[in-house]
Amino acid sequence: MHNSQPYLCEQQRVARKFKPLLENAVRAVVLKDSQSHALLNVADLGCASGANTFFVIATVVDTVKNTCQEFNRATPDLQIYLNDLVGNDFNSLFKGLSKIQFQNENMSCFVMGAPGSFYGLLFPRNSMHFLHSCYCIHWLSQVPPGLTSEEGLPLNKGTIYISETSPPIVSKTYLSQFQKDLSLFLSCHSKEMTSEGRAVFILHGRSSEDPTGFLRQFLFAMGLIEEEKLDSFNVPYYIPSKEEIIDIVEKEGSFTIELIETSIDHIVDEQDMDIQSKARKIAKNFRCFSEPVIAYHFGNAIMDKLYDKIACNLTERLATKTCEQVSISIVLQRKATVTK
Amino acid sequence: MHNSQPYLCEQQRVARKFKPLLENAVRAVVLKDSQSHALLNVADLGCASGANTFFVIATVVDTVKNTCQEFNRATPDLQIYLNDLVGNDFNSLFKGLSKIQFQNENMSCFVMGAPGSFYGLLFPRNSMHFLHSCYCIHWLSQVPPGLTSEEGLPLNKGTIYISETSPPIVSKTYLSQFQKDLSLFLSCHSKEMTSEGRAVFILHGRSSEDPTGFLRQFLFAMGLIEEEKLDSFNVPYYIPSKEEIIDIVEKEGSFTIELIETSIDHIVDEQDMDIQSKARKIAKNFRCFSEPVIAYHFGNAIMDKLYDKIACNLTERLATKTCEQVSISIVLQRKATVTK
Repeated sequence: MHNSQPYLCEQQRVARKFKPLLENAVRAVVLKDSQSHALLNVADLGCASGANTFFVIATVVDTVKNTCQEFNRATPDLQIYLNDLVGNDFNSLFKGLSKIQFQNENMSCFVMGAPGSFYGLLFPRNSMHFLHSCYCIHWLSQVPPGLTSEEGLPLNKGTIYISETSPPIVSKTYLSQFQKDLSLFLSCHSKEMTSEGRAVFILHGRSSEDPTGFLRQFLFAMGLIEEEKLDSFNVPYYIPSKEEIIDIVEKEGSFTIELIETSIDHIVDEQDMDIQSKARKIAKNFRCFSEPVIAYHFGNAIMDKLYDKIACNLTERLATKTCEQVSISIVLQRKATVTK
Repeated sequence: MHNSQPYLCEQQRVARKFKPLLENAVRAVVLKDSQSHALLNVADLGCASGANTFFVIATVVDTVKNTCQEFNRATPDLQIYLNDLVGNDFNSLFKGLSKIQFQNENMSCFVMGAPGSFYGLLFPRNSMHFLHSCYCIHWLSQVPPGLTSEEGLPLNKGTIYISETSPPIVSKTYLSQFQKDLSLFLSCHSKEMTSEGRAVFILHGRSSEDPTGFLRQFLFAMGLIEEEKLDSFNVPYYIPSKEEIIDIVEKEGSFTIELIETSIDHIVDEQDMDIQSKARKIAKNFRCFSEPVIAYHFGNAIMDKLYDKIACNLTERLATKTCEQVSISIVLQRKATVTK
């Protein structure tokens, strides 16, 4: 990941617009019971090691403190668990955090690392008051199986995601994997949550029925990659529509949807930036989250060339079109009746 | 730290002899209430990233499982917090742990990283059922201040700890720092513990009244170090007697001492090992825990030479004497009446 780079990922910038959503949900958690809480447990799932996580922690801490002050309640101890895969750079995360913890000396806030996949149990039953995850749960637990024929030949040739040239089985297979993963995610984390605990999830989404199109700019650059390597690769990533998510949450049954919204952001909307700089910025943003998985398959050697090509193609595209990022934000409340 | 080295530190070997102590204390925690626990919170303070921690986790998990089975109780969820300073290598720790977690699939055991100094609060009030710390709390929070004269000149010349040549103020200053640190440690962690929660602490100790002598073998090698550098350095480490610890615990007042024992181990007691190999092994063991702090002050460049010299001097010494390690093990129970 490009956490060491000085620029802030576009998706980090976009995430910040969901601050009021986060604040409202945390406020609801604090005020849920008529009595003050002694302890609130909060988790950020898929925290990585970057700036977004620190921003989330600061928002949660401030909201708890302010809400308690406003409603004359005793401030609870706060325990914030930062989750990501075992391979995440927790060392950097903890070093960055040590500064933030000192800034909140007046409130007892304990930050912990919780390594493991969020497609499984991470915390004891009935312990979590609030869950958060930002731009993570569009990552699938695996590349959908079934993208090869019975003879082992690739079914999704010349592309790495659902595109106009993909046979119908490809989009069905992707959706099916997303349904399985999101259901498992909801089922695991509902068990960990206290009755009526709340969750805020933000993920990449699409605003149309048509599932193709994501990563289209990437394909322009695919000439750089051997055909065989390209044919056998598919990204473990799915861009759902709001309707698909509603369907999965309702079928899984542990949560009530308090709010679900699709929002569209024009990436790099600075008026005074020339098209070439905008294109480079979008390509960097794209590299920020896609490089690890792309480099793993195609090798590090061609990465610079690949993202330069993408920037180049984007320059042409931006002459006539803007570049959008669609996000879906969801606030869920755990049903009181979930059997554990 | 030499965690990557294939040998097991002598103190890790010695720690394993305290397994029954650990088992008994965990068993007492499980059986404390007449009802089954839904959740047990356990912490290892100063876990580093090595084999000892994995051994402690495995022992705790097995003991909880076996005790519940024997007394026909429901198995609780286990949450194990691994604490060390922010600079600890948590990445390696988590990678090693991911293997162990899989070995205990039948029991819900969640392992977390808790970065921070144990001379401060690390966990929410009233949350911890069991605390463990092995060969850590002899490390002081700082080099005792007051080891220089009012003019800023070193008072403990030619040595790095309390030795026969040290003026009396040196041992007083060291003891005073240890008293402050251990009191703070007990006071912080008693707040975090549940009523009547238990703790097992193992640390380096001495069996005599005389506080000199520790690190004596080290001094043989000090000819390698510039006099000025040597004079200005003192280790942030104190080797207490059993009586000193009892005095501090009683004065601090949060805990009842259930058991305190001094034990002496003959380091490298393999009959079939020649003296030179034994000396090398002891020097390696010594390097294992002392190198970070020694290298920080004297530089990495002379470390190989220094520990080679120590091995060499030890070879002479072992011809007439054995090499001992004194440990003090303590089992504490938090008093039910502690005000929080």
